[in-house]
Amino acid sequence: MAHIKLPEGLPGIRGPMAFRPETSKPLNQLAEVLLRSDNSLSRGDRELIATYVSYLNDCFFCQNAHGGIAQHYMQCSMEFIDSIKNDFRTAPISNKLKALLVIAGSVQKGGKHVTSDQVEAAKKEGATDQEIHDTVLIAAAFCMFNRYVDGLGTYAPQDREFYVKRGPMRAEEGYLHFDLYK
Amino acid sequence: MAHIKLPEGLPGIRGPMAFRPETSKPLNQLAEVLLRSDNSLSRGDRELIATYVSYLNDCFFCQNAHGGIAQHYMQCSMEFIDSIKNDFRTAPISNKLKALLVIAGSVQKGGKHVTSDQVEAAKKEGATDQEIHDTVLIAAAFCMFNRYVDGLGTYAPQDREFYVKRGPMRAEEGYLHFDLYK
Repeated sequence: MAHIKLPEGLPGIRGPMAFRPETSKPLNQLAEVLLRSDNSLSRGDRELIATYVSYLNDCFFCQNAHGGIAQHYMQCSMEFIDSIKNDFRTAPISNKLKALLVIAGSVQKGGKHVTSDQVEAAKKEGATDQEIHDTVLIAAAFCMFNRYVDGLGTYAPQDREFYVKRGPMRAEEGYLHFDLYK
Repeated sequence: MAHIKLPEGLPGIRGPMAFRPETSKPLNQLAEVLLRSDNSLSRGDRELIATYVSYLNDCFFCQNAHGGIAQHYMQCSMEFIDSIKNDFRTAPISNKLKALLVIAGSVQKGGKHVTSDQVEAAKKEGATDQEIHDTVLIAAAFCMFNRYVDGLGTYAPQDREFYVKRGPMRAEEGYLHFDLYK
């Protein structure tokens, strides 16, 4: 049961968002610009960074909600997403994305864990300043979203098919114009 | 030196905000609604929660920038703010605020660290559901802001008088309409 009285039947972040629309507005705008707006990083790559950080923060709802969107964009299975979360270094993804996931993992531990060497390695693989900026901010933002979802003790469906099924819908509707109750 | 090429001479979060105005907009809107808009928690209390979490995350810029605003609202010294950061349990602040700082400290560690007992203790001291919600989200948001500021290796003035002097100006102008270069 959630720590405060939230609207019933809304999984994960949707309960607090319905509870407090004033804060949900900038939170959704941030998600939209970071994860969906035009970017040299694909939407799949950005959802994967969000998924990986949510996994490191052990947030069941976020890692599956965004994992479900990532697997839709990447046209792969949840098991493939899981294998990247567990060991991205040996996964069949680009070296640039691997270097960005290293940075995201450091951000999850704390901002000062990001090193010049990690940033240089990402630049060497072709990462631009904006891609590095966005990786840091996506990782930092999910350190917020994960704490928001779990810090209020929200409800998360345990059947992962729930998230797989919703992935395409979430990808389509985005973070700005959606019905919290659907 | 920052990890990416940021506009020069802008301390802390201002460099990345000038670098990427698309993301700075929702970030500032979030800060405005959480820290300044109408709320049963005073602006001083909310800035103090932000300051305390930034202290726990060891973010020099954020704990002093928001500490400077808090000491302005509370009409106290930075030394008094420091004493609260170091040991809020013995500080001359309300029991409700102490209970909310306990929750904020748990959020900083990770969402699952927040316990029902901590939330019940806050409610017993008169905290409303919305105050608990906002405390969790302020703490979570500063886990983002702190990582954003330090994860990009931004510059922070070391003279704390810099932050004390800017406190009243920041309090006055808020987070929506300000000149990044002032």
